[in-house]
Amino acid sequence: MKTPVLALTIALVATLPSSAQAPLTSWQDSAPKQAITAFVTKVTTKDSPDFVPPAQRIAVFDNDGTLWSEQPMYFQAFFAFDRVKALAPQHPEWKDKEPFASILKGDLKAALAGGEHALLELVIATHANTTTEEFDQAVSSWIATARHPQSGRLLTDMVYQPMLELLAFLRHHQFKTFIVSGGGIEFMRPWAERVYGIPPEQVIGSSIRTRYELRDGKPTLLRLPEINFIDDKAGKPVGIHQHIGRRPIMAFGNSDGDFEMLSWTTSGQGPRFGLIVHHDDPTREFAYDRSSSIGRLDKALDAAPSNGWSVVSMKNDWLSIHPPKAD
Amino acid sequence: MKTPVLALTIALVATLPSSAQAPLTSWQDSAPKQAITAFVTKVTTKDSPDFVPPAQRIAVFDNDGTLWSEQPMYFQAFFAFDRVKALAPQHPEWKDKEPFASILKGDLKAALAGGEHALLELVIATHANTTTEEFDQAVSSWIATARHPQSGRLLTDMVYQPMLELLAFLRHHQFKTFIVSGGGIEFMRPWAERVYGIPPEQVIGSSIRTRYELRDGKPTLLRLPEINFIDDKAGKPVGIHQHIGRRPIMAFGNSDGDFEMLSWTTSGQGPRFGLIVHHDDPTREFAYDRSSSIGRLDKALDAAPSNGWSVVSMKNDWLSIHPPKAD
Repeated sequence: MKTPVLALTIALVATLPSSAQAPLTSWQDSAPKQAITAFVTKVTTKDSPDFVPPAQRIAVFDNDGTLWSEQPMYFQAFFAFDRVKALAPQHPEWKDKEPFASILKGDLKAALAGGEHALLELVIATHANTTTEEFDQAVSSWIATARHPQSGRLLTDMVYQPMLELLAFLRHHQFKTFIVSGGGIEFMRPWAERVYGIPPEQVIGSSIRTRYELRDGKPTLLRLPEINFIDDKAGKPVGIHQHIGRRPIMAFGNSDGDFEMLSWTTSGQGPRFGLIVHHDDPTREFAYDRSSSIGRLDKALDAAPSNGWSVVSMKNDWLSIHPPKAD
Repeated sequence: MKTPVLALTIALVATLPSSAQAPLTSWQDSAPKQAITAFVTKVTTKDSPDFVPPAQRIAVFDNDGTLWSEQPMYFQAFFAFDRVKALAPQHPEWKDKEPFASILKGDLKAALAGGEHALLELVIATHANTTTEEFDQAVSSWIATARHPQSGRLLTDMVYQPMLELLAFLRHHQFKTFIVSGGGIEFMRPWAERVYGIPPEQVIGSSIRTRYELRDGKPTLLRLPEINFIDDKAGKPVGIHQHIGRRPIMAFGNSDGDFEMLSWTTSGQGPRFGLIVHHDDPTREFAYDRSSSIGRLDKALDAAPSNGWSVVSMKNDWLSIHPPKAD
C-alpha cells in the first residue's frame, strides 16, 4: 500500500506537463543548457530581483540555421526553384533569361552565380502575382512533400530537436516565442504553427507588398512584385519593434545576420539572454562558420564572449540533432 | 449552517472570472448584444458545425470612435498640438510656418485648415527624430494627465465601457483581441495594455520608419521623418495580413475607414461577424455620421444590412457610455 504522501506526490508528478517533467532532454548537461535553465529560473521566480512578468517574457528565434538546417542552401530557394519549374509554361521567356534558364536546365550552381540580385529577382518572380490565399496554398502543398537533397527527409523534419524542446520549455514558463527570420514571412506562416507551435501572428520575416482589391466583387489581397521589408541584420530590430513593440529578453541566432538582433535584445535593461548555435558537426549535420556564404558566422562569434552570449557547439552540447525518424 | 452543496456552489461561483459572471452588463438586451452572444456561443461550442478552434479566434477593433471617443478631434491631434508647444523652443522657424504658427497662437481651427497634408506634416514633425524609447516616454507622460476639452475627464477614461466589457468577454472565450487603427502604432502601444488589456504585439496602426543605429555604442532605434505605413481604409486588411497573417473572424469599427476591414473579415469562409458603432447619442456622447469630417460613416452604414453587419445605436443599445467616474 502506498503512503498518502507518496500517492499525493505521484499524483502531482503525473499531472505536470511533459516539458516540465523532462525539459531539454536532447541537451547535454553543459554550459548552454545550464545558462538557459538558470536564466529562466531567475526571471520566473516571484521573489527574485530579476523576476520578469509573463507579458514581458518575449523570446525571438532566427529560423534558417537556428530552428532548422540551411545547407546546402536556404530551403526557401528550393521552393523558388520548384516554383520556376511549375510556372515555366506560363513564362516562355524564362528559357533565355537568367537565373531562370539555368534552373530549368537543372544547373543550380549557374543559377546562383548572379548573387543576391539574381536571387531577389527569382524570389519576386516566384512569390508574387498571386493572392495571399493562393500563395499559402502553394507553400502548404509544396512543404507537405519537399525533401532534403542529402538526407532525403522531409524539410519539416530537418528542424532541430533541442530547439523544439527549448521552444516548449520557454512556452511552459509563459514565454511568448517569435520567429524573426530573413526568410519570407508568408513562406514560414503556413507551417510554423504545426512544426514549431508558433502561430502566424508571431512570425516576423521579409515580405513583399500586398494590395487590397476586389476580384469579381470578392475582397482579395494581391501579392505585388515589390519588396516591402528585408528582415535581416539591422532590419531585425526594426522588424521586432514593428511587430512586437517591446524589446525581447531572449534572442537565439546562428549567423552574422542575427548580430543586431542579439545586440538589441541583450543591451536592454534588466536580465537578458543571447545564444548562438554554432554549426560544428560535420557528421550529424554540417560544419561551417566564418567563410560560409550561407549562414556566415564571424563577427557575432567574436562578439559573443564580451556580450555574454552563450555559444552552442552542436557537436558537443546537443545529444541529438533532428527528431527521430518515423519512417 | 450551509449545506456542503451550497458551500461548493458558492465557492465555484466565487472563483469564476467576473466577465463570465456578468458579461456585457452595459449592453441593453437588444439585437447587437444578442448577435454577439449568439455568435460567440456557436463558434465556441465544441459540437457546433460553426466551432472555431481557439487559435483562429481573432477579433479586430478599430480604436478612434470604436474603443474611445474621437470628437471634437482625434485625441492623437491633441498630443501633436502639445508636442508642438513643448518642442517650439528648439524650432524657432515654427513661429512663421503653418500649421505650427497657428497652433502656437492657440488657433486650432486655422491649424487644421491645411487639411490632411498639414496634419501629416504635423505628425511627422512631432513624432519623429527621437529614439523609440524617448517617444514611448513622451506618450506615457502625456497620456497620464491629458484631459478631454469638454468632459474634463482623462482621455483614457473616454473609452467605452460596453467595449471594455466586450474585449474581456471575448478574451474569456479564448479570442485574441487586436487593435487595427489609423492612429499611430507607437502612440497607442504605451497605454493599450493598461487601458484595454491589449499587449503591444496586438496593436496595429500607422507608422513612420525606424532605423537601427549605434549611439555612443548603444543599440538604438531612431524614428525617421518618413511615413512607413498608413493603416486606414484599404490599408487595414494589408496591416492585418502583415501583422496577424490570418483573416479575423470578428471585426468592429465605426466609420468608412473600417469598411475594407469589415469587408475583408466578413467575406471569409465559415462564421464571421461584423459590427459598426453608430454615434447617435448627442446627450451622453456625440452624434455624427454621413457628413462628419472625423469618423465619417456613410458607405459602411449603407453596406451594413446586405453584409449582415450589426449596427449599435449608442443611444439605444448601450446602458452606459464611459466607465463610472472615480473622481
